[in-house]
Amino acid sequence: MMSDESIKELCSKLVPINYLNISADAKKQRDKKIKELLEKRKLLQKGLDENSIEMFIREISLMDSNNYTNKCGVGEREGRIVCDLVRRRHFNFAHGIGRSGDISEIQPKATGSSLLNQLTNALCLDLIKMMGVRSAEKCIIFPMATGMTLTLALLTLKSKRFDANLVLWSRIDQKSCFKCILTANLVPIIIDTIKNDNDELHTNVEEFEKQIEIFGAGQILCIISTTSCFAPRGCDDIEALSKLSKKYDIPHLVNNAYGLQSTYFTHQIEQAQREGNIDFVVQSTDKNLLVPVGGCILFGFNQELINDVAKMYAGRGSSSSTLDVLMTLLHLGRDGYMKLVHERKEMFQYLKENLEKLAYQHDEKVIVNKRNPISMAMTLKSFNKNKVTMIGSMLFTRGISGARVVSTLENKTIDGYTFNQWGSHISNENNVPYITVAASIGITKNEIDDFIEKFDKVLLKVKNNES
Amino acid sequence: MMSDESIKELCSKLVPINYLNISADAKKQRDKKIKELLEKRKLLQKGLDENSIEMFIREISLMDSNNYTNKCGVGEREGRIVCDLVRRRHFNFAHGIGRSGDISEIQPKATGSSLLNQLTNALCLDLIKMMGVRSAEKCIIFPMATGMTLTLALLTLKSKRFDANLVLWSRIDQKSCFKCILTANLVPIIIDTIKNDNDELHTNVEEFEKQIEIFGAGQILCIISTTSCFAPRGCDDIEALSKLSKKYDIPHLVNNAYGLQSTYFTHQIEQAQREGNIDFVVQSTDKNLLVPVGGCILFGFNQELINDVAKMYAGRGSSSSTLDVLMTLLHLGRDGYMKLVHERKEMFQYLKENLEKLAYQHDEKVIVNKRNPISMAMTLKSFNKNKVTMIGSMLFTRGISGARVVSTLENKTIDGYTFNQWGSHISNENNVPYITVAASIGITKNEIDDFIEKFDKVLLKVKNNES
Amino acid sequence: MMSDESIKELCSKLVPINYLNISADAKKQRDKKIKELLEKRKLLQKGLDENSIEMFIREISLMDSNNYTNKCGVGEREGRIVCDLVRRRHFNFAHGIGRSGDISEIQPKATGSSLLNQLTNALCLDLIKMMGVRSAEKCIIFPMATGMTLTLALLTLKSKRFDANLVLWSRIDQKSCFKCILTANLVPIIIDTIKNDNDELHTNVEEFEKQIEIFGAGQILCIISTTSCFAPRGCDDIEALSKLSKKYDIPHLVNNAYGLQSTYFTHQIEQAQREGNIDFVVQSTDKNLLVPVGGCILFGFNQELINDVAKMYAGRGSSSSTLDVLMTLLHLGRDGYMKLVHERKEMFQYLKENLEKLAYQHDEKVIVNKRNPISMAMTLKSFNKNKVTMIGSMLFTRGISGARVVSTLENKTIDGYTFNQWGSHISNENNVPYITVAASIGITKNEIDDFIEKFDKVLLKVKNNES
Amino acid sequence: MMSDESIKELCSKLVPINYLNISADAKKQRDKKIKELLEKRKLLQKGLDENSIEMFIREISLMDSNNYTNKCGVGEREGRIVCDLVRRRHFNFAHGIGRSGDISEIQPKATGSSLLNQLTNALCLDLIKMMGVRSAEKCIIFPMATGMTLTLALLTLKSKRFDANLVLWSRIDQKSCFKCILTANLVPIIIDTIKNDNDELHTNVEEFEKQIEIFGAGQILCIISTTSCFAPRGCDDIEALSKLSKKYDIPHLVNNAYGLQSTYFTHQIEQAQREGNIDFVVQSTDKNLLVPVGGCILFGFNQELINDVAKMYAGRGSSSSTLDVLMTLLHLGRDGYMKLVHERKEMFQYLKENLEKLAYQHDEKVIVNKRNPISMAMTLKSFNKNKVTMIGSMLFTRGISGARVVSTLENKTIDGYTFNQWGSHISNENNVPYITVAASIGITKNEIDDFIEKFDKVLLKVKNNES
Repeated sequence: MMSDESIKELCSKLVPINYLNISADAKKQRDKKIKELLEKRKLLQKGLDENSIEMFIREISLMDSNNYTNKCGVGEREGRIVCDLVRRRHFNFAHGIGRSGDISEIQPKATGSSLLNQLTNALCLDLIKMMGVRSAEKCIIFPMATGMTLTLALLTLKSKRFDANLVLWSRIDQKSCFKCILTANLVPIIIDTIKNDNDELHTNVEEFEKQIEIFGAGQILCIISTTSCFAPRGCDDIEALSKLSKKYDIPHLVNNAYGLQSTYFTHQIEQAQREGNIDFVVQSTDKNLLVPVGGCILFGFNQELINDVAKMYAGRGSSSSTLDVLMTLLHLGRDGYMKLVHERKEMFQYLKENLEKLAYQHDEKVIVNKRNPISMAMTLKSFNKNKVTMIGSMLFTRGISGARVVSTLENKTIDGYTFNQWGSHISNENNVPYITVAASIGITKNEIDDFIEKFDKVLLKVKNNES
Repeated sequence: MMSDESIKELCSKLVPINYLNISADAKKQRDKKIKELLEKRKLLQKGLDENSIEMFIREISLMDSNNYTNKCGVGEREGRIVCDLVRRRHFNFAHGIGRSGDISEIQPKATGSSLLNQLTNALCLDLIKMMGVRSAEKCIIFPMATGMTLTLALLTLKSKRFDANLVLWSRIDQKSCFKCILTANLVPIIIDTIKNDNDELHTNVEEFEKQIEIFGAGQILCIISTTSCFAPRGCDDIEALSKLSKKYDIPHLVNNAYGLQSTYFTHQIEQAQREGNIDFVVQSTDKNLLVPVGGCILFGFNQELINDVAKMYAGRGSSSSTLDVLMTLLHLGRDGYMKLVHERKEMFQYLKENLEKLAYQHDEKVIVNKRNPISMAMTLKSFNKNKVTMIGSMLFTRGISGARVVSTLENKTIDGYTFNQWGSHISNENNVPYITVAASIGITKNEIDDFIEKFDKVLLKVKNNES
Repeated sequence: MMSDESIKELCSKLVPINYLNISADAKKQRDKKIKELLEKRKLLQKGLDENSIEMFIREISLMDSNNYTNKCGVGEREGRIVCDLVRRRHFNFAHGIGRSGDISEIQPKATGSSLLNQLTNALCLDLIKMMGVRSAEKCIIFPMATGMTLTLALLTLKSKRFDANLVLWSRIDQKSCFKCILTANLVPIIIDTIKNDNDELHTNVEEFEKQIEIFGAGQILCIISTTSCFAPRGCDDIEALSKLSKKYDIPHLVNNAYGLQSTYFTHQIEQAQREGNIDFVVQSTDKNLLVPVGGCILFGFNQELINDVAKMYAGRGSSSSTLDVLMTLLHLGRDGYMKLVHERKEMFQYLKENLEKLAYQHDEKVIVNKRNPISMAMTLKSFNKNKVTMIGSMLFTRGISGARVVSTLENKTIDGYTFNQWGSHISNENNVPYITVAASIGITKNEIDDFIEKFDKVLLKVKNNES
Repeated sequence: MMSDESIKELCSKLVPINYLNISADAKKQRDKKIKELLEKRKLLQKGLDENSIEMFIREISLMDSNNYTNKCGVGEREGRIVCDLVRRRHFNFAHGIGRSGDISEIQPKATGSSLLNQLTNALCLDLIKMMGVRSAEKCIIFPMATGMTLTLALLTLKSKRFDANLVLWSRIDQKSCFKCILTANLVPIIIDTIKNDNDELHTNVEEFEKQIEIFGAGQILCIISTTSCFAPRGCDDIEALSKLSKKYDIPHLVNNAYGLQSTYFTHQIEQAQREGNIDFVVQSTDKNLLVPVGGCILFGFNQELINDVAKMYAGRGSSSSTLDVLMTLLHLGRDGYMKLVHERKEMFQYLKENLEKLAYQHDEKVIVNKRNPISMAMTLKSFNKNKVTMIGSMLFTRGISGARVVSTLENKTIDGYTFNQWGSHISNENNVPYITVAASIGITKNEIDDFIEKFDKVLLKVKNNES
């Protein structure tokens, strides 16, 4: 507003016009970036400073009807906020996103929130393309967990393939990946991974095809594959599964949980779609974009399919995750995100080298799956299987979150389905216990050094206690 | 911390101890309230001031592992936040609520978020009881729209009653109320309301029972009834439906969308549960608690049933709505919420009186349904049905959001189901067009005066244009 | 910015143009107020909402060079802020106000801060006129205590009247009122107040004239009078002193400490200036405008004189107080401030009535000086003079700040000048001990009720202990 | 508070005690740092994170009486804040610092503000010692410009040496350094610097002694010397001046404006005090600590002397600068500040090297005074003296603030005193025009690169226009 000519003239009664001109030029520099953003609807090359972001967000929020000075609400949902702390932390946004029948629809009462939603989805799509999935066509942020978004996608498929009840699923021992199938009231066919000579776990593609032939494609609602996961499991062979999907005309969902941060996974997806078929890819906003938990990015290669899922979300959604994502993408810009991506890659190497040294000292081995650029495992074969979980809790007490110890002794039953050797993605093998750690986006060298030092101490302590 | 004796002694080298003692007493007054809160886990009688709320929230957030000063994350989900604007608006909360298999489970990595979640659910339950549903047993806030929470409840029921596909639904012309059934891939039986002599719309209880007998209770997954709604429709006869639910052993879901703000609706629910059966009651956080859109309160009379729904939510959820609710409930306290409740009741009368005067001047009639204490309708019979929607958009342009014009000319088809005279909750009647307005929680006298004045002008303008 | 046509067009690719038009209209409503503000440079009739204030402040701050995106500082003072908490709380303002030789000068590096300064001074002048000093000509906010601003004004006078060393001062027992004279290295002539039959203390005008004749006008630098003060002292007879000032051509400073909040005092000032002469009026920003301590408003009836003081401030000043004042005046508007003024007046009556009841019960008397509309005293004659101060500390421990007990036993020496019966503004009288309380701007009915109740208990407790 | 055992027990009804224990440990880690701070009252080695700082500040502010929940103000100054934006930005601090007669006194109403004040002064003293002035004894932050604080120090001296009116001042062409003498109504004796063979400007110590002998020590109130300044002037020979001060028993004030950031200047001060005498050293908070303009640090080697100045400040002062300084020092810690100090030193070298290259290309010379480690000059001898100021404004328009062009053509008169060749600190010399730039604390490599590039272009443009 202060770059407006008429305002400048008014101000000139208080300060000289030549100073105002310089200020107005500076303001125009900022405005230019916002114009570029709205015009191209793509990530800016360089991130914006906090002032520009906050001003933009505040300007948008004033476009919502609850913030009009002449507002007069006589409905049941008027965006009133009674606690000032709440109002401020949402920058006066109150109306959420979407309309009752469609999470991506425009709200007449909330022009600003709608703009926020459309723009953020557009920027996310640009990010996905930049990361390597160049043929991605449409992207929507859902205000729900990745698991729930998978459920919603399954329900969408189910509404079209009413007679299909089975879901072919390459086993991964994370609860929500499995729960999302049960929540949709579908029947999972669990296909264990297979171990190769290097102790890497890979997709049992043959078993997939076998199951399709057993049940018939018409009975199978879809295939669910997973990219990012805990080593020694690696990214599923999504290229092969995509080909099966295409060959048998069975939908294919990819759970790319925290895979958007790595070009390895995104290139797998791009390649798989070219050679076969992928319907939906889901990933979490928190793990890939470093925002608080709460949202999921759904994308695909067919606009209509994605819109169909949007239309399944019953009710308005929170705009909180979308706002977090927008502010983060404006803050980072292309350069900022790519910097994080590159640093993560380096940190993975650094963690690997240091962990290998440590493993050598303790007579253990680091298992890196070539198809897993984020997580790695280290065997704990010299420790008593029954006491190995103690290592995990000792690490946790020392501030190390995220390390995960697999004893291979535990069997887990989820809603009637039993997983032997829970945590290891595979049953009936002579598995050794191990620990997994990950170098995910945002990790620092300090954290790795700190981890290695503490891990070493913990291992020594456990050994000494045992002997 | 400054009330701690050892700190006080240290401070006494900088300021005299007698002043520090008075300060420490003042601090203890604040701490006492927080202790009471944690001990009783009930609403405080009086709301807290902003300082106390913010300090408490910040103290809790520091209990999460991402905020430990010795944190060292080597996992894939470490609660990192890269954009400072985002971090601040979430008061450093990053981990969301729940664990992959259960939205109400405790997260080891996030003790503070877990405390936030448990405490807020407890306070919400207390609010529900205070509002009149004394037999409520368990309450959980879901980080999803009311519609999606209904879907999740339906999916939960479905997982237990695998052969039942039908949902008996008392027609209400709001899209998400209907969508939630379709999203769960269930088949709705739509039961039109019936009109009485005063043009009020009521539940067709007989038709419900008839349909049960036609299909057989085993085929019917559940009954869905609605309390708060647009006049001239009123609250469903949930007592009668609860009795049917009990008699035929069919689950019963109540959509209490914005009904928690009115003791009329809550007493209906309490009474209905006593006389019959209710399994789940859902209502939105935004409309009842004046927070931004995003959450849903699910409560019931059987702890296990509610927990079952919690266990269906696949993945972690956003803690954003929960945080909003907690801050709001701490801000209001019992007195603050009851004040809002009483003021709303008065404003309903005020709106009614003024609208009746206006209706009289324009030769129209106000229709108030005795079972609807929030919304009222005014006929627009003297206007051309084809042009009546123009009134709505003229009001909207003048800052009046929430008024809703029903022309009775529109038919709407949602996923293959057609609703004649969409908006009027009833078909095949010689309906007149009308407008509905509501006096919901938070409305002010100013807004009503402003609405009446603008509405009058709009009606005159439309009349003059027509003649 | 979002009301800009070109931006609107860009947005229309994301949301429909008709919604954007409504939003743009709403934005224009806000902008209109800001334009009015900059055009008239007077208080707005109605206060602005927080959004408008914050946006305006942020827009202005971006006009300062430290916030330019292309900034490149190679000087010694570049407005860098290293701690983010600090940066945010100052809304990115860093350059302060004024230039080394003049606190009201424009800073080329800080167009926004300069605008802030000029505008706030203009609004303050408007407030002063609105409160009744219609002939006020110029007003400047100084980033210093009232006492220090008095010192600066004295130094300014001294630079013009190099041979005059004496300051005639109507005694008021508040330390900083006296210190300001000594700080300027001047010699005070202390003129005790005189007591009338109602125990009110008034100005000894005769003694003033007598002293002028003794020393000769050329020896006297100025007269300092005080308006607002603790009862039973009242506002000095500034009309009579102004006439002396004019008659003998001696400058006259009025210490209107917290008198801007009361039209009684402002009308005294206006009247006094008409009949005689006033050079400077000082008052604190915190006590009159309800902002944190830190600033002083200096005004007068001759632009040049005020500018002379501005030119005496060596160095740049903090813009913090100015920012507080601006935000407060935008928040209140004319209506908001006048509401506070009227409420205070009512609360004074309420306090008086309740204190009189209490006094009657305890066999004491309330002394109200007709020339003091803010403070009142209550005798404590039935208490032991030696123990009377205990009452003050008991009140303080109970959260009552601001009550002031005068035992009349204390003599105080400040830099060699001894004040007998310190606190009572008068010596050598058979004074009874008393307590003073005030109803100043912002006081609430609750506070008064609370005070009366606690005061009663304290008096009873002291009495019982004594007997 | 959440580390309190009784609270932990209450929480354990909501989340498991083992998780609470880990959280409580993490909280204790934070609390330990605060305890260390209060116990030692010295800079922490490492800076605190934002959470710890904000929690600490909020805890302190709740110690002030205006924030007590049972507060009941019946005085004229109760710390009320009417505008919420203002309240929040001051973290609820309202009472300022000091009491009417002493800026460093404890306020009974404001225990927290008093603690803030004492602690910050203590930390500042520690910083001064860390930077090299090991014998510093006492330090107070004044809520005024450096210039005004110098005035206050001069007034303090004057109150003790009533007959002395002259101030011996080593010329430096910055207005506020000179104004501060006039504001105190004293008479400056201006002693021009002298130029050596390298075009460096140094103190004319002989002239100082000559003037002392001419007027007699009893007539001279004090000597004012300056450390940090614009090249080619260097730090005054404060060791020699200190010796004169001691020899003739004349007080000595050092204007260390932005010299605290450089160990060169602080070592000069330490050395000078050892060999001679310094009474007061003043420096600005903004330039040395990267906070907004507004405060001044006064320190000395004799507690009583510093306290005397504190007692001269009439009235309470703003706590705003003190709060900024505290948050900044907590944020930086020793390591953080020293990092800034070292980086600045490197940047000075970088600027020098790059500027020398540029000077060579343009046939000019860089003048670095060995006694000036912050500022450097570059001659502009090949440009027309009359047009040389254009270079300054062209740079300013391009976002370069802080470069200062001296044409040597300007004479300036301040309150009757004329400075020939204003800006050059010396008269009657055959001076060439030049530009000065500085590498002060917080400068970045980017800024220097940007400056060099733009400066080059500007010089070329001016040359081409001239030819």
